[in-house]
Amino acid sequence: MAKTRRICHLLLRFLAFAATLAAVIVMATSHERASIFTVSFEAKYTYSPAFKYFVIANSVVTVYGFLVLFLPKESLLWRLVVALDLVVTMVLISSFSAALAIAQVGKNGNSYAAWLPICDSVPKFCNQVTIALIAGFVAVIAYIILMLHSIHTIIDPLLLRKN
Amino acid sequence: MAKTRRICHLLLRFLAFAATLAAVIVMATSHERASIFTVSFEAKYTYSPAFKYFVIANSVVTVYGFLVLFLPKESLLWRLVVALDLVVTMVLISSFSAALAIAQVGKNGNSYAAWLPICDSVPKFCNQVTIALIAGFVAVIAYIILMLHSIHTIIDPLLLRKN
Repeated sequence: MAKTRRICHLLLRFLAFAATLAAVIVMATSHERASIFTVSFEAKYTYSPAFKYFVIANSVVTVYGFLVLFLPKESLLWRLVVALDLVVTMVLISSFSAALAIAQVGKNGNSYAAWLPICDSVPKFCNQVTIALIAGFVAVIAYIILMLHSIHTIIDPLLLRKN
Repeated sequence: MAKTRRICHLLLRFLAFAATLAAVIVMATSHERASIFTVSFEAKYTYSPAFKYFVIANSVVTVYGFLVLFLPKESLLWRLVVALDLVVTMVLISSFSAALAIAQVGKNGNSYAAWLPICDSVPKFCNQVTIALIAGFVAVIAYIILMLHSIHTIIDPLLLRKN
């Protein structure tokens, strides 16, 4: 039973790691050049602070996720992982929300502010951003579950010891 | 000692409640009409999905914060508050990040996407949004502290009982 739980936990950590890695790669490789009439036009993630924040946050979390995968079961650092899982979840939620807000304007525009949608001109860029956001969302969900599990594991032994 | 801690806790809860309430009121009352040449132009929070999300999220959290203020000390619902504090913190972070991302585009624009800044035309609207975002940020910080305190209080009695 304990072994199954541990395998599930490791699989979820691997999924979270893979999701953040995918989000970084897909977002970072997204750029497209389009020309409207004679004006050449380029779309790149570095042109938006929100997308840059998304890539940086997911990169840091990818490194963290990779390191945690190799943490031995008995390590005392697992107590630190509980706190770090909390921080990581909050950072991921924040970067995902900011990137989603900008992507929404990119897709639908905002007629009141006269911001035109750009997805018609650069559909490939938009698709890649969408895929990166989906990967980012999977990472957020995975880290929320991991965080709840982490909190549960520090409370659980204490509860057991109480009886 | 326990009494001082309880007063600090209540004060922080009140600060969090006041901050979310201020964020809602300031954001919801922000609208300005400007005219550029002959074109009349209006800025309102409802014109941006991110700002709408910010107002809705902060409203819900304001109601929650108000109810928790009147929860008796011995209530069993405090265990639920731990979980709700976690959810509330995540929702607040998400809505704040999304609104900040849009506000940043409103202030600086994005020359690559040809989105022009709107703050020069509607400075009063921009100021109100900035104040709402500052209040939202204070609320985020307050709820992060409250969440850490909540987690601590469920672990603490268990740790004490252990010895």
